[in-house]
Amino acid sequence: MADLLAPFQKEMLPAVDEAMRAIVERARQEGDPGLYAMLAYHLGWEGLGAGPKAQGKRVRPLLLLLTTEAAGGYWHRAVPAAAAVELLHNFSLIHDDIEDHGERRRGRPTLWSQWGLPLALNAGDALYALANIAMLELYPPVAPQTTLVATRVLLQTALHLTQGQHLDMVYETRAAVSVADYWRMVEGKTAALLAACTELGALLAEAPETKRRAYHEFGRMLGLAFQAWDDYLGIWGDAALTGKSTSGDLLERKKTLPVVYGLSKKAAFARLWAEGFPKTPADVPMLATALEADGARTYTQAVAASLTTQALEALSEANPQGAAGQALERLAHHLLQREV
Amino acid sequence: MADLLAPFQKEMLPAVDEAMRAIVERARQEGDPGLYAMLAYHLGWEGLGAGPKAQGKRVRPLLLLLTTEAAGGYWHRAVPAAAAVELLHNFSLIHDDIEDHGERRRGRPTLWSQWGLPLALNAGDALYALANIAMLELYPPVAPQTTLVATRVLLQTALHLTQGQHLDMVYETRAAVSVADYWRMVEGKTAALLAACTELGALLAEAPETKRRAYHEFGRMLGLAFQAWDDYLGIWGDAALTGKSTSGDLLERKKTLPVVYGLSKKAAFARLWAEGFPKTPADVPMLATALEADGARTYTQAVAASLTTQALEALSEANPQGAAGQALERLAHHLLQREV
Repeated sequence: MADLLAPFQKEMLPAVDEAMRAIVERARQEGDPGLYAMLAYHLGWEGLGAGPKAQGKRVRPLLLLLTTEAAGGYWHRAVPAAAAVELLHNFSLIHDDIEDHGERRRGRPTLWSQWGLPLALNAGDALYALANIAMLELYPPVAPQTTLVATRVLLQTALHLTQGQHLDMVYETRAAVSVADYWRMVEGKTAALLAACTELGALLAEAPETKRRAYHEFGRMLGLAFQAWDDYLGIWGDAALTGKSTSGDLLERKKTLPVVYGLSKKAAFARLWAEGFPKTPADVPMLATALEADGARTYTQAVAASLTTQALEALSEANPQGAAGQALERLAHHLLQREV
Repeated sequence: MADLLAPFQKEMLPAVDEAMRAIVERARQEGDPGLYAMLAYHLGWEGLGAGPKAQGKRVRPLLLLLTTEAAGGYWHRAVPAAAAVELLHNFSLIHDDIEDHGERRRGRPTLWSQWGLPLALNAGDALYALANIAMLELYPPVAPQTTLVATRVLLQTALHLTQGQHLDMVYETRAAVSVADYWRMVEGKTAALLAACTELGALLAEAPETKRRAYHEFGRMLGLAFQAWDDYLGIWGDAALTGKSTSGDLLERKKTLPVVYGLSKKAAFARLWAEGFPKTPADVPMLATALEADGARTYTQAVAASLTTQALEALSEANPQGAAGQALERLAHHLLQREV
């Protein structure tokens, strides 16, 4: 099944990587080699631990380019947009890591933990500019009006990301976070950029407005469903399978979907949480059990399954064509079931 | 003399303020009121100490709109660009204050010192997006191609700002900083955004390429000359006149033009500096005297005067027209002599 995706990955991702390198190269030619070295490190091209693993999976550019093809366009024309979304994603990781005090990313020390906060913050700003500059490279051959629309989509997405991140940070210290609050945050933090990828893909295929909306909705629902599964697995996932500790999300007292649902029940879990549990890793299984007893496991599973169905329905409504269309469907299944 | 400028300020700046408010309002409508409140505080519209003083002098939008008029265009069409440069400037202040650990700005506590670093960093990112979104509002009535060029100028400037800021931070801990190193930093930190203002002004007046280049050069030299005078006054200025302590720059051991020149002489000042002086405010006069004895005062004055001449020559080459042209000249004199 994964064979459906592989040929596209093999063809598209090197082209995206090349476009990203050409854009980032400017930071070296026009600026300081030190700033360039920071960006090349963060992007997994240089420095300790550089390589494919440090570069991330590049799901977003793949989603964008597959959409372009599936919507009847030519993916080569959309490469600057694919480079732009990947650069924007990477910019947001630099700043998120500072804001969340994250010390490791993709198996390596984060940029700020290597170079210090001030230089890393500034390098993030440089990557933000480069992401948008990448988008402007669409024209020519893409029409100037379309390039403007694409740039606006990227900037509105960047704004939406900051709104999601703002809420995420504010929720950390707010006692009462509702399920509705949670979704507002996830719309910005996870769904906005995936929706931008599919929308940009359709836009650059010159798909009609209705098709663009369907693709946007597909990307958005994909993001919401992905986050719901991610939250589920963060508590009840098989650590060996997901490669991350299942004690993590609860121990960090993250306001994930099961937690905000559990808190809304005002039962056993909510009482334990209010008392400050979990306090140690040993408390985690007890908390997870209380959460499950309050119905949060069933609820999260049902919501994630329903969102997955909605995402696939939105994709089916977009009516993706050809081998790229099949690959797009494959990518959605892959992301939502976390296989491979 | 100031009367030449006043009518333009009175007409143009409220239009810029209105455009800025309309753009920032989106952060409230589409996002969280908390994020909006942070931006409105930083921009001097709301919160403790809000008012004209907290909003800054808005020199950059004024420079841009006067250039549009002086180059034969209509300033009303360029208002989105003027809002964009002011928003970009304000974005850079939010992040600079974090990077430099600056606690006060325009007489008020800085954003990070009020809301904490993570939320302020993120609010800066939101303002970055809004600055670029403001620029996209040029179209219509401005042509899409011209709007793309204007957006690229803004983004390249944002990139250039990060390069200047990178060097500024790196120089803090680097022992050997040459005069050439200094200018590379100032090109990014000060000159780039002023050059963008005059270039955008000429672009939006649909001035020919040669005129755009002359205006760009005017803005750039204005920035370099301004910084040279600022560095001069930071050591030998009349504290009462400039409103800032003349002991500041030396006491903070800033690598200003007089200091990098003094270090290059490898004489009395360089020896004292290497020994870690000034260590207390009482050491400052002694350091300033040593710097003057090594020729740094005469040098800085000569360089600043020469750059001022070059800036005014570039303006004269651009051949600004009408009352706006006279006002532009007035603004240059005002910035370079720090009158009023």
